[in-house]
Amino acid sequence: MAELRREPIVGRWVIVNTDDPSGPEDFEIEEHTLTQSNNCPFCYGNESLTPPEIDVVREPSTKPNTAGWSVRVVANKFPALQIEGELNRRGMGIFDMSNGIGAHEVIIETPYHNKTLTDLLDTEFCDVISKYCSRALDLIKDKRFKYILIFKNYGKSAGASLEHSHTQLIALPMVPKNVHEELKGARDYFEYRERCIFCDMIYQEYQDKERIIIENRNFIAFSPFAPRFPFEVWIVPKRHNPYFCHMMQEEICDLAKLLKDILMRIKVTLHNPSYNFIIHSSPLDEENKDSYHWHVEIMPKLTRVAGFEWGTGFYIVTIPPHLSAKYLREVK
Amino acid sequence: MAELRREPIVGRWVIVNTDDPSGPEDFEIEEHTLTQSNNCPFCYGNESLTPPEIDVVREPSTKPNTAGWSVRVVANKFPALQIEGELNRRGMGIFDMSNGIGAHEVIIETPYHNKTLTDLLDTEFCDVISKYCSRALDLIKDKRFKYILIFKNYGKSAGASLEHSHTQLIALPMVPKNVHEELKGARDYFEYRERCIFCDMIYQEYQDKERIIIENRNFIAFSPFAPRFPFEVWIVPKRHNPYFCHMMQEEICDLAKLLKDILMRIKVTLHNPSYNFIIHSSPLDEENKDSYHWHVEIMPKLTRVAGFEWGTGFYIVTIPPHLSAKYLREVK
Repeated sequence: MAELRREPIVGRWVIVNTDDPSGPEDFEIEEHTLTQSNNCPFCYGNESLTPPEIDVVREPSTKPNTAGWSVRVVANKFPALQIEGELNRRGMGIFDMSNGIGAHEVIIETPYHNKTLTDLLDTEFCDVISKYCSRALDLIKDKRFKYILIFKNYGKSAGASLEHSHTQLIALPMVPKNVHEELKGARDYFEYRERCIFCDMIYQEYQDKERIIIENRNFIAFSPFAPRFPFEVWIVPKRHNPYFCHMMQEEICDLAKLLKDILMRIKVTLHNPSYNFIIHSSPLDEENKDSYHWHVEIMPKLTRVAGFEWGTGFYIVTIPPHLSAKYLREVK
Repeated sequence: MAELRREPIVGRWVIVNTDDPSGPEDFEIEEHTLTQSNNCPFCYGNESLTPPEIDVVREPSTKPNTAGWSVRVVANKFPALQIEGELNRRGMGIFDMSNGIGAHEVIIETPYHNKTLTDLLDTEFCDVISKYCSRALDLIKDKRFKYILIFKNYGKSAGASLEHSHTQLIALPMVPKNVHEELKGARDYFEYRERCIFCDMIYQEYQDKERIIIENRNFIAFSPFAPRFPFEVWIVPKRHNPYFCHMMQEEICDLAKLLKDILMRIKVTLHNPSYNFIIHSSPLDEENKDSYHWHVEIMPKLTRVAGFEWGTGFYIVTIPPHLSAKYLREVK
């Protein structure tokens, strides 16, 4: 019989198939063919095809917006939201709206079209994460922005439209619904127990052991108790810290190492699937300081979201997390 | 510049591209090839391949579980939840779980493998909707079930695994998160304004006119002000009624006609896309009687959900609803 499990932060229920679980070979394999390499705006030498760089890691002797870089941050040429203007919220009959103020940046992780995050050197990956932090810290100074979301879409099934390896950063004029729910769930738990739910979750994972995949000095990676997707992985810092962009340098490098390791394990186990990862962080406020705990959620895209999920907010997961953790842990 | 719009019931924000909108030709076309027609358990003559029929529309002279039917309801052979047993909620460390009690039924809409809902006669479609209602009414008598969800997945991108046209019904031991949010949003509105938000929305649609696609005596179909997906359509009954399964016979037939018409318009405009539709109804309680208003949400699957949507709960829609309504309205 299937189990119903409650995700402890937002209270989402998931149906986990424990009787007849899927294995890694039961999912459709997605081909990733590189087709856009001519005139790719993110490639070495094509720097003039993007808006000017906002931030960069480059050879000291080279000029901005020329070759010689290893990580490059630019404004999205087709932004979902626009940086200029004042926020103007207003009504329209019974409806509410606002002009689309925000920032939409792209962190180009490598100058090479055929490289993915797992091909980067540890130091290169560390530079990428450093840029996530420095851009978030810079944008949050703008008083119009209430939340900075950092996320990556890899592969077509995960919604990637450009194939050259990149991460996106969107600054929003309001704290989005999903973040609000998580913050509230963690606050409710804190009010009741006077403890951070994520710190408690780490403790529980150490007790249960079976869902832990790997860990290092500063981070632990596990398959969550009530995942939405098969082979979902969370990376959580061991130190209580609500704000992603307040990581210490040592933590940045440890995160880079662990994230690269996990992405590699997912790639090997599941034949290079599409995936999303999302940095979950508190806004830079005081209210969530004790109760929230930033972390990364990695969601391989092996199945399709269907009517049941859209209608309920429940998810059906065909492999229990202790088994997906085992597959990922055993990768050599 | 894009517009930010707030969905009035649950407060979800969507980013609507009003400056440079997509048209129907800008979405990828998905092929639907029929491959599973041999030994399809839902086909005429293969009745013994499914669990026994629970409900049926069939020729009076024919026997159960033989040919001679036009709509057939059976238990799902691979149910997400199981009907036998008592609900047993319990803790597991800091986590909460339950055994997977529920019902999972399939409404086979036609005996013919190559037919879809839009190929049915009006009377046949009416029989399908009647079975949705009668099954929901029957299952809700079981005190273990708190909510009945009826939904359809058409096409691979919408998560359909069997290609023979069918609808699914799942009875759940708890009111799911998404339904709970909608009920609460509608109740909050009612408490503030002493009016049903859906009744107000119908009134607003008549004022604004531009998002209405079609209507008949009992129903109105429009593109919602803040859709999650391009070409999303809502069908709302004109009469305030919280419970889908309390429709009158006349309403059942009018819904069948309007839903068929809308599905046909979507098929023609968007080259037969995958879609989900979901019946949104209140549980059979007193609490939501005045504030909630059942309806159908139809979501063509033209785009992929990516990291931004997963991270925020915001959606980016590349065509504003007044334009998608216009395209659908103008279908001959």
